[in-house]
Amino acid sequence: MTEFISREVRLKARPTGMPVENNFEVAEVTLDPPREGQVLVRNHYMSVDPYMRGRMYDRKSYAPPFQVGRVLDGGAVGEIVESNSDALPVGSFVQSGQGWREAFVSDVDTLVQVDPQLAPLSSYLGVLGMPGMTAYVGLFNAAEMKEGETVFVSGAAGAVGSLAGQIARIKGCRVLGSAGSDDKVAHLVDDLGFDYAFNYKEGNLLQRLQEGAPDGLDIYFDNVGADHLEAAIFHMRPFGRLALCGAIATYNDTEPRPGPINLSMAIGLGLRLQGFVVSHYNHARDDFIRDVSGWIKEGQVKYDETILAGIDQAPAAFAGLFTGANTGKMLVKLV
Amino acid sequence: MTEFISREVRLKARPTGMPVENNFEVAEVTLDPPREGQVLVRNHYMSVDPYMRGRMYDRKSYAPPFQVGRVLDGGAVGEIVESNSDALPVGSFVQSGQGWREAFVSDVDTLVQVDPQLAPLSSYLGVLGMPGMTAYVGLFNAAEMKEGETVFVSGAAGAVGSLAGQIARIKGCRVLGSAGSDDKVAHLVDDLGFDYAFNYKEGNLLQRLQEGAPDGLDIYFDNVGADHLEAAIFHMRPFGRLALCGAIATYNDTEPRPGPINLSMAIGLGLRLQGFVVSHYNHARDDFIRDVSGWIKEGQVKYDETILAGIDQAPAAFAGLFTGANTGKMLVKLV
Repeated sequence: MTEFISREVRLKARPTGMPVENNFEVAEVTLDPPREGQVLVRNHYMSVDPYMRGRMYDRKSYAPPFQVGRVLDGGAVGEIVESNSDALPVGSFVQSGQGWREAFVSDVDTLVQVDPQLAPLSSYLGVLGMPGMTAYVGLFNAAEMKEGETVFVSGAAGAVGSLAGQIARIKGCRVLGSAGSDDKVAHLVDDLGFDYAFNYKEGNLLQRLQEGAPDGLDIYFDNVGADHLEAAIFHMRPFGRLALCGAIATYNDTEPRPGPINLSMAIGLGLRLQGFVVSHYNHARDDFIRDVSGWIKEGQVKYDETILAGIDQAPAAFAGLFTGANTGKMLVKLV
Repeated sequence: MTEFISREVRLKARPTGMPVENNFEVAEVTLDPPREGQVLVRNHYMSVDPYMRGRMYDRKSYAPPFQVGRVLDGGAVGEIVESNSDALPVGSFVQSGQGWREAFVSDVDTLVQVDPQLAPLSSYLGVLGMPGMTAYVGLFNAAEMKEGETVFVSGAAGAVGSLAGQIARIKGCRVLGSAGSDDKVAHLVDDLGFDYAFNYKEGNLLQRLQEGAPDGLDIYFDNVGADHLEAAIFHMRPFGRLALCGAIATYNDTEPRPGPINLSMAIGLGLRLQGFVVSHYNHARDDFIRDVSGWIKEGQVKYDETILAGIDQAPAAFAGLFTGANTGKMLVKLV
């Protein structure tokens, strides 16, 4: 067995506001050979996700904060290139959560085998992975979506939003989406079957919602927070449900941002705001895989990927999440 | 049949900020005798409720706004003193929602007969009426309270909060309450069986919650909004539920008030914020009456009333809701 050199992305300094290249450093490490029960994984794709911004703050949350000087945790898919375990022979493919590394040595029990014959390897990080399942459980579990409802998805061109909108459409709902460019808006309507989409950078959010859903919203799938959440509350129908999934507009705030001025409208309207992260609904995983993989096969669900090549691009890919650089899932390709 | 003179409270001008005497006027009217199928009701008690403040704004909400120059709608209980209907003979007692009047003529189908032998007449406006049922459905339906949970009730000395806290205690929960004076705090602990209560005007809300519930809150029953809601969110346990019932701290705001800075904590913690008004859960009425009247008989539930005498006192009684003048249900006694 030869020495194996890998590179990895470390948190160099906690970002203040928008993350910049200098918050990260790419370091070279020499991997030990896998011991008994271990394997060496060479990652093909790394997942770049908005939620990681939250872990760059030094504060308690549902996931522990990243440590300065340490590799950033994150999802990846890769191939076993050395194996000291019968469970995962060389040539197997696995999904992992051990960070932004080109390669790593791991016990096999933290790895989940995936089949690149069933679906493209990258899709296990997106439409069939954490973001896809987030869309699925957000609609069915957090928002308790019913057929025929009117659903607004913010950040609708992202990995989560684009699937959420398509699932709602498949389930017979009227679907509105917001995105940050005219091209994305056209894509939502022309390619993904949204009933109405708009560029949130132009015009008044509430007016756009009124145009797209004159009778109001039954469900708001919130990926953005801030002004999007406030406008949605103003336009909810009685007993509407808001699935609080993310608040990307606020992730780089340097001061706490006040909440919506109209939260008390929830009282009279009987609104329900349900916060969630995907792991709260792990019991729905089988349903999610069955339904979404079926819809992909039938051509009912399309998914986009924005792929940057090389681990050096990881910081730029991450920063790009907050400037709208991605359509669909943001990935870094390593092999 | 003789002429019947009644007085009634009208909205003279919409309040700006805190309501003042001059926003109201007491006017004398002469009632027509009841026609076929009608009765003349002399009210014994009028209900004075915080939600009425919302109806003094000229805006769409779950109840239509009060009209300037017109009588204020509101709950009352009274006695039939003239009857032109077999359904409600003279001497019957009825609950109504026709406003702050000493007496009125009405079709019988808008009136609900009540029995002063079963419970004191005034209790139909409080612990066995709308505020009582609000407490009941807020815990069981909106917050889905379970035995053994930790429950924080704000405005806990009010008509809704004082019952909510006692129900939670009866159901084996640990109960915290906030109130606006040391006397009320002592009353909550000594007389109503709260496990911990504090004066929200003294010290730091979050610190008090940490003292009273070191392991966090499962349920927050919000009657106050504003800083109370924010502090509660900071202290919620994973999968906590917040029943948004009222926001009395904000009812007299002249400018929209920003929401809590920490609403996005709902995401990672899986918090549910459920807005409600009592009418959303009308199906629970029979359970409510059975349970609460049973608890009163068993001595498990106590209730307070703050009673002002004479219709001229109605504006002062109403303003007093916002300055903490009441313990328990605020009423105006007319007979």
